Amino acid sequence: MDVSQMSPNEMEQQLQHAVEEHRRFTTDGEVANYIPKLGSANPKTLGITVTMMDGTSFTAGDCDAYFTMQSISKIVSLLLALQDIGPERVFDKVGKEPTGDPFNSIVKLETIKPSRPLNPMINAGAIAVTSMIAGKDNPEKLERLLQLARRLTNDTSVNVNKEVYLSEKSTADRNRALAYFMRENGIIHGDVEDILDLYFRQCAIEVTCSHLAYMGAVLANRGKDPITSEKIVPEDLARIVKTFMVTCGMYNASGAFAIDVGIPAKSGVSGGIMSAVPNRMGIGVIGPALDKHGNSVGGLRLLETLSREWQLSIF
Amino acid sequence: MDVSQMSPNEMEQQLQHAVEEHRRFTTDGEVANYIPKLGSANPKTLGITVTMMDGTSFTAGDCDAYFTMQSISKIVSLLLALQDIGPERVFDKVGKEPTGDPFNSIVKLETIKPSRPLNPMINAGAIAVTSMIAGKDNPEKLERLLQLARRLTNDTSVNVNKEVYLSEKSTADRNRALAYFMRENGIIHGDVEDILDLYFRQCAIEVTCSHLAYMGAVLANRGKDPITSEKIVPEDLARIVKTFMVTCGMYNASGAFAIDVGIPAKSGVSGGIMSAVPNRMGIGVIGPALDKHGNSVGGLRLLETLSREWQLSIF
Amino acid sequence: MDVSQMSPNEMEQQLQHAVEEHRRFTTDGEVANYIPKLGSANPKTLGITVTMMDGTSFTAGDCDAYFTMQSISKIVSLLLALQDIGPERVFDKVGKEPTGDPFNSIVKLETIKPSRPLNPMINAGAIAVTSMIAGKDNPEKLERLLQLARRLTNDTSVNVNKEVYLSEKSTADRNRALAYFMRENGIIHGDVEDILDLYFRQCAIEVTCSHLAYMGAVLANRGKDPITSEKIVPEDLARIVKTFMVTCGMYNASGAFAIDVGIPAKSGVSGGIMSAVPNRMGIGVIGPALDKHGNSVGGLRLLETLSREWQLSIF
Amino acid sequence: MDVSQMSPNEMEQQLQHAVEEHRRFTTDGEVANYIPKLGSANPKTLGITVTMMDGTSFTAGDCDAYFTMQSISKIVSLLLALQDIGPERVFDKVGKEPTGDPFNSIVKLETIKPSRPLNPMINAGAIAVTSMIAGKDNPEKLERLLQLARRLTNDTSVNVNKEVYLSEKSTADRNRALAYFMRENGIIHGDVEDILDLYFRQCAIEVTCSHLAYMGAVLANRGKDPITSEKIVPEDLARIVKTFMVTCGMYNASGAFAIDVGIPAKSGVSGGIMSAVPNRMGIGVIGPALDKHGNSVGGLRLLETLSREWQLSIF
Repeated sequence: MDVSQMSPNEMEQQLQHAVEEHRRFTTDGEVANYIPKLGSANPKTLGITVTMMDGTSFTAGDCDAYFTMQSISKIVSLLLALQDIGPERVFDKVGKEPTGDPFNSIVKLETIKPSRPLNPMINAGAIAVTSMIAGKDNPEKLERLLQLARRLTNDTSVNVNKEVYLSEKSTADRNRALAYFMRENGIIHGDVEDILDLYFRQCAIEVTCSHLAYMGAVLANRGKDPITSEKIVPEDLARIVKTFMVTCGMYNASGAFAIDVGIPAKSGVSGGIMSAVPNRMGIGVIGPALDKHGNSVGGLRLLETLSREWQLSIF
Repeated sequence: MDVSQMSPNEMEQQLQHAVEEHRRFTTDGEVANYIPKLGSANPKTLGITVTMMDGTSFTAGDCDAYFTMQSISKIVSLLLALQDIGPERVFDKVGKEPTGDPFNSIVKLETIKPSRPLNPMINAGAIAVTSMIAGKDNPEKLERLLQLARRLTNDTSVNVNKEVYLSEKSTADRNRALAYFMRENGIIHGDVEDILDLYFRQCAIEVTCSHLAYMGAVLANRGKDPITSEKIVPEDLARIVKTFMVTCGMYNASGAFAIDVGIPAKSGVSGGIMSAVPNRMGIGVIGPALDKHGNSVGGLRLLETLSREWQLSIF
Repeated sequence: MDVSQMSPNEMEQQLQHAVEEHRRFTTDGEVANYIPKLGSANPKTLGITVTMMDGTSFTAGDCDAYFTMQSISKIVSLLLALQDIGPERVFDKVGKEPTGDPFNSIVKLETIKPSRPLNPMINAGAIAVTSMIAGKDNPEKLERLLQLARRLTNDTSVNVNKEVYLSEKSTADRNRALAYFMRENGIIHGDVEDILDLYFRQCAIEVTCSHLAYMGAVLANRGKDPITSEKIVPEDLARIVKTFMVTCGMYNASGAFAIDVGIPAKSGVSGGIMSAVPNRMGIGVIGPALDKHGNSVGGLRLLETLSREWQLSIF
Repeated sequence: MDVSQMSPNEMEQQLQHAVEEHRRFTTDGEVANYIPKLGSANPKTLGITVTMMDGTSFTAGDCDAYFTMQSISKIVSLLLALQDIGPERVFDKVGKEPTGDPFNSIVKLETIKPSRPLNPMINAGAIAVTSMIAGKDNPEKLERLLQLARRLTNDTSVNVNKEVYLSEKSTADRNRALAYFMRENGIIHGDVEDILDLYFRQCAIEVTCSHLAYMGAVLANRGKDPITSEKIVPEDLARIVKTFMVTCGMYNASGAFAIDVGIPAKSGVSGGIMSAVPNRMGIGVIGPALDKHGNSVGGLRLLETLSREWQLSIF
């Protein structure tokens, strides 16, 4: 099916049909519950937005549902740190390699010499990246993060969900362990609680799947705003993050996703997935019911179906 | 630079220039020496062949140098096993995920429950895949492997280098450990030495970088022969192996290669790299001097330069 | 209770009472079943023999039941290798440290640099030790092992159970993996199947708990036969193996056993435990029902009770 | 040599001779330098005190040198926690098994399910034990710890070295990582910095080797003061800590120490070693130059020599 030949009507109909078809899979998963606020999400929620390279968007399902970015925010902070201090300095502290371990694992920080997080998509790496963001203090750093997030999502009202941020902060001992371990090894510097505070706020940036679709479209469009063609991030940085999205964007199921779906994508435990199909479109999905890897079950199925029908795989 | 607009002359000149430019990097690496025959390779060798989607090829440097496929053969055996018993049965025993561990590591076979090799590109996974090839005995299985290798390389004379095979076989205790551990866990069945014998033979299949370029072109061309358009492997299987080439084709440096070069590629310790740029070209390089990850230093640099100049990254 | 003041009658009565008391615990465990012959043992079997420093023995329960030494044979082979090539050369290849890993784990062989088994009580270490036994061929080595076993057990009829040996040999892929991994790393040399063949035979040496008690008494008696006072093994070697029995003799529960019972002991998956109370007595128990660590549940309880009542702890 | 037959003069002479003989080995080691204050210790310091079961003491070398207990304090806190809440509750959270990993390793906290420190002698386990000490607040808990330390060392002036405590506290990110990881897993509860503050203070309790010898004598004397015969700790708790001293008291060299020396001992990175020879004597040594495992090189050699000459091994 040639998606570029479809009329807007056909497109919307197809998306609506897909959402209806796949909503039943949401019962196969469970909502993340390590944060009370996440646990209260409706597991049956399923929504999708597709944003084309000309900026037009198509939506279906629960597209107005707000959720927090969680791990998807790792893309925003990575883009910002890469701009702030350049790839060389970022990758001096954080590797580029996928890891077969869980996203919150601490084992390789001890076993790999010299110690460093294997990539910026696992928690340790993402915390290290957040510590590299420029700014005189946390409010300034957060402001810069939000500014980038707003430009990527094309919405100046995007902001932090305070309740989720506070909830996150109070249940984050694993992240504290990662951070102190990294400070011990000179990977991060300064006040650990400050670094984590910024990290928890970034994870709690609130969006809809339409925001994610726009963000994906910017990355798919080589860093340029699909409507204004304004450069939001440099092309090579957009390329770098899309690569990470393929090799380690879907937690411990990134390899299977690359084979079964084949498009750069980053998921979060709130159930969102942000995808960028190079030169073609951005796709945002939300579906809070998660599989055992922490990926949206409904979202995964939706993307797999669309990728097959629209031949989106980059491979 | 738009490679599709270049004349054959320009193309060859550019390749020759690139080979000359990069040959000096070969002194940064060392020839693999765990097998005597590999250790005798000339570290200064550097050659490249590019095969376009119409079947035309361009070469530069040491393109006539023969070397053994080594890990590149894992692509051939995986394609054959996928055809023989289907992806579902193959991936029931071998995972799809990249691993942060060395290619010959045994640790995760013990620590991951239930035990299974994380992917078919690490030695454990590749041995398991070889055990899945159909055939009444080893000679028949080898014949089938060679037939596929010959069609992929467009050369009916492609064959096993006996000396390297025997050398390989006599220094393979790590692979024996992997195989017995897997048989203990029901991942492989039957006679371990038989399975390894076939595996060592497959690793010793001898080619030039022109053979690798053709093979890459078949994969880039969705499984079809670029000259005859004949289907050599099904499109979806070609897609699967190209995906593995991105997520785990370059040993423990696959993530960095995906970022820095961005094309599906599989390397071997003999110094060969087989690349497939989807819908555009196949590239074969040889350069026996290896970096610490086991990848050709000269080959890596060549591919990085060409990817940048010709904008080959799929991301 | 002062055991040295008890009459033979009191002693036997107390042992019989203890066996009766503890037999009910045997239902908490399960017979090892990875080898068919082991799986056919009666889980309710429970027997004990105590051999004093003057050679007198007291028995209760199923003392005539024959079983194979399994891991208890690691003590015999270690004593022989220590005599044959000396502690320095043995401990150059095999460490002296307890390990928190399972007895058949392969992980640390890869992660510890340079690779070596942490101690001679885990399978890897024991296989390495067996490979160090002197002799022109396996029959001679086995003969030497049997001679030592016979002197330690005071019974010239002690021999290998062929059926168990063959069964062992046919289900030993994990041990093969350990052995090949070690040969790769220069820890063992020569023919792996030959080394393992000797190892499987040593594990299949058949004894009763009275044999084990005598062996324990020799070790408790600083290497001298308790009846003839003849030196069977040098005092310092007896001391070395008693130390290993404390730090790593009871698989992954050695630390708990040292605290709860506090006497040097070595267990086997057939359900036997050989204990040596320095300068006081040897104790042999049999009880094929095992706990999750591979130790005899009934045997453990018996030893714990006797240690408390007779104040046997060395700490 | 029968130590019980030696005159006080002979005893002192032998100790002085031994100190002189072994002082040269101190150049084989290095002073711990992760805390500035520890780094300023004189590596040539070497001192020993032996306290017999009747309370008489013999000293040689630098016996007046003060140093901080460091890991030796883990024995004091373990005794206190065992008294406070009983072995069952302590060992519900902290295991009894030796580990082949470094004392500050975090790996097994993640890989062992359910998560718990393998024993109370590694840092993770010791922090968990400290968190179990009873008291309404840290000052009260510290007071109770000091009271026990003073009774064990027979010196009411024993106290915390503030400078070392503060230095410790400011360089303790690895311990913070361990503590937050454990709180995540429900092994410890409450304010992590509070728990660590108490832990750092306990590590900074300052003593001489004579204090350690007295402490060892109390443990050797089954928990009773060797002079007054007053019960300081219950006999079974004294037995438990002596057992840990054998199985995991000398860091990653506990197994080798058990074989080569064979007496319960606990070392600290300040260079102290506290030993308890059951029913015979306590031995305290100080020698700040450490080997790669963190044990005093001079102290190890001294103890090895004395154990051999006085036949102190418990095995």
